[in-house]
Amino acid sequence: MSQSLALVGIGKIARKQHIPSIAAIDGLSLVATASRNRAATVDGAEAFPDLTTLLAARDDVTAISLATPPGARFGDALAALRAGKHVMLEKPPGSTLSEVETLVSEAKAQGVTLFASWHSREAAGVKMARDWLKPRRLTTFRITWTEDVRDWHPGQDWVWSAGNLGVFDAGTNALSVMTAILPAPVHLASATLAFPENRDTPITADLVFDSPAEITAHFDWSQPGDAHWAIEIETTDGAARLTRGGARFETDDGVKVDAEDAEYKRLYANFLALIDVGRLDVDLSPMRHVADAFLLGRRVQVAPFHW
Amino acid sequence: MSQSLALVGIGKIARKQHIPSIAAIDGLSLVATASRNRAATVDGAEAFPDLTTLLAARDDVTAISLATPPGARFGDALAALRAGKHVMLEKPPGSTLSEVETLVSEAKAQGVTLFASWHSREAAGVKMARDWLKPRRLTTFRITWTEDVRDWHPGQDWVWSAGNLGVFDAGTNALSVMTAILPAPVHLASATLAFPENRDTPITADLVFDSPAEITAHFDWSQPGDAHWAIEIETTDGAARLTRGGARFETDDGVKVDAEDAEYKRLYANFLALIDVGRLDVDLSPMRHVADAFLLGRRVQVAPFHW
Repeated sequence: MSQSLALVGIGKIARKQHIPSIAAIDGLSLVATASRNRAATVDGAEAFPDLTTLLAARDDVTAISLATPPGARFGDALAALRAGKHVMLEKPPGSTLSEVETLVSEAKAQGVTLFASWHSREAAGVKMARDWLKPRRLTTFRITWTEDVRDWHPGQDWVWSAGNLGVFDAGTNALSVMTAILPAPVHLASATLAFPENRDTPITADLVFDSPAEITAHFDWSQPGDAHWAIEIETTDGAARLTRGGARFETDDGVKVDAEDAEYKRLYANFLALIDVGRLDVDLSPMRHVADAFLLGRRVQVAPFHW
Repeated sequence: MSQSLALVGIGKIARKQHIPSIAAIDGLSLVATASRNRAATVDGAEAFPDLTTLLAARDDVTAISLATPPGARFGDALAALRAGKHVMLEKPPGSTLSEVETLVSEAKAQGVTLFASWHSREAAGVKMARDWLKPRRLTTFRITWTEDVRDWHPGQDWVWSAGNLGVFDAGTNALSVMTAILPAPVHLASATLAFPENRDTPITADLVFDSPAEITAHFDWSQPGDAHWAIEIETTDGAARLTRGGARFETDDGVKVDAEDAEYKRLYANFLALIDVGRLDVDLSPMRHVADAFLLGRRVQVAPFHW
C-alpha cells in the first residue's frame, strides 16, 4: 500500500539521506515536513512549524519519520502514534531506554508500525559478514570506530551535553552492526570511558565483552583525518574484515562487496514492508550496550576539548 | 510442588534474610549451599565451594537462589538455567541489562522459571499505595531515599568500584517501589550524579522524570543517622506517605499499615508460585531507570569519600 509520509526535522541528515532516499522509493510520497527552522522547506511538501500543527492540518498523512535529535523525539513520536500514524525513528531511538519501551506499548495499543532504524545495519557487507560467520567459530571480533568529531559535528556543542552520548553517537553504529552479525547475544564485561574535563560526554571509549572469544570495541572521536570504521573478524576457519562502516567486506579470498551507500533507501523500503505486514521492529540491543557501558564503565578524565 | 533449594552466596543478606525466610516457607527446603568462604555453612544443608560442584553432586536440587553480588552472578545463573533449574536472582538482577536479557532467553528455552526479585516491592504498604493512587490524579511523587553508607556497607570498597552502582544500590529499591505504584510507565527527563573525586560510583543522585506530575527522586548515601526511605504522594484528591522503605503507609485519614518486615518471605512464596504455574517474572524497569540515569545524567565531582 502507498504511504503519504511526513518528515520531522529538516537538518543535515534529512537533506543528505532521508529526502533523496524517500524520493527513490516507490509507494512513498513526502507530502509534508515539520521544522522549527522556517527556512527549512522541501519542494513539493507542505511545511509546518511543528508536528502538532502538521497532524491537525494533514489527516491524509499515514506515516511519520523523525529525523530530529534523540532528546527532542519522544513527544513527537508519542503524538504521532496516538494519532494512529506509523512511525520511523532515527538512531538512537531515544535518550532513554524507558521512553522507547513506552513507545512500543503505545504502538502495540494503536496497532501501528514502529520502526527503530539502525542505518549502519543496511550497509552492503553486514548481512554477508553475518552469513560468513554463522558456520564458523569466532576467536576475535575487534571493532575500531574512529573519526574526527571536528569533521562530523563541527562546532556542535550539543554532542558534549549530558544525554547526547559523545563518541557513542558514532559507536552505536558499530554496535548496531555487531549485534546484527554475532550469532548469539553478548554483554559487556568492562568498559572505560574518557571524558574531557570540560565536557559531559566521553570522547573515547573502550569496551570488552564477556565471551570465550575476544570481543572488543575501541571508539575514538579525536582521530584527525579520514574516519576509520572497521571490524576485524577472526575464526578457527579464516579471517574477514568489514570496513567503510560495513560497506566493504573482504575475506582471505578477496573483496566480496564494496558498494555505494544505499543504507537509507533500504531503511525506507524496510519501513514500508513492516507497515505492509503490520509489524513493529524495535531492537534495543545496540542502545542497551551503550547504557550498559555508562552503567558499569570506569570514568577517566582527560584533557579539555576545544573545537 | 515442593522444591529442593540451593542458596549461592552465604553472606550478610543470606543470613539475615534468605535463610530464615526459606525456613518459614512450606514446600521449600534448603538442601545445599555454595560459598567461596568455606566457613560459611548452614546447618542441615550440604556445603559446596561453588555452584559447578554443587550441580554435579546434587541432582535432586530443583531450584537455585543467587544472593551473590551482581557482578558475580551471570555465570552461575546461566549454568543453573542450563542445568534445568528454576532460578531466583537478588536485586539488581545483573551488572548489565544485556546479560539479563540473555538469561531470560535461556530460561524460556529451558522452560524453567526465572525470577528477578525486588524485595522492596514486597513491603506491606506498596500494594496499598498503588491501589490508593489508582483512581486519583497524581500531582507530586517525591522520593527521598537517604542513608549512611558507613552503616550499611562499612568499609566495603566494592560499592565504590565501577559497575556497583554506588548510591543506586539503595536507589534501585526506591525505583522498584515507584514502578510498582505508578499507574503508567515514566522515563527520566534529567539526572545529576555526584561522584566523590576518589571513587568510581556516585554518592548522591537527583532524578527528574518526564511527566505532567512532578516526579522526582533524591538519593543520598552520606546522611548520618537513621535511614530515611520515604515517598510523598500528592493528588488532586488527597495526599499519602509511604515510609520505612514501604512498610508504613498513611493517608490524610491516618496510618493504614505499619508492619514488620516480611519482604523475603513473600519473595520466596512468589518464587514457589511462579514455579507452580510455570512462569517467569523479570521486570527490568527499575534497573533500566538506573541505566538511563547513568546514560543521560550530568556528572559532578564532589569531595573525596573516606570511610
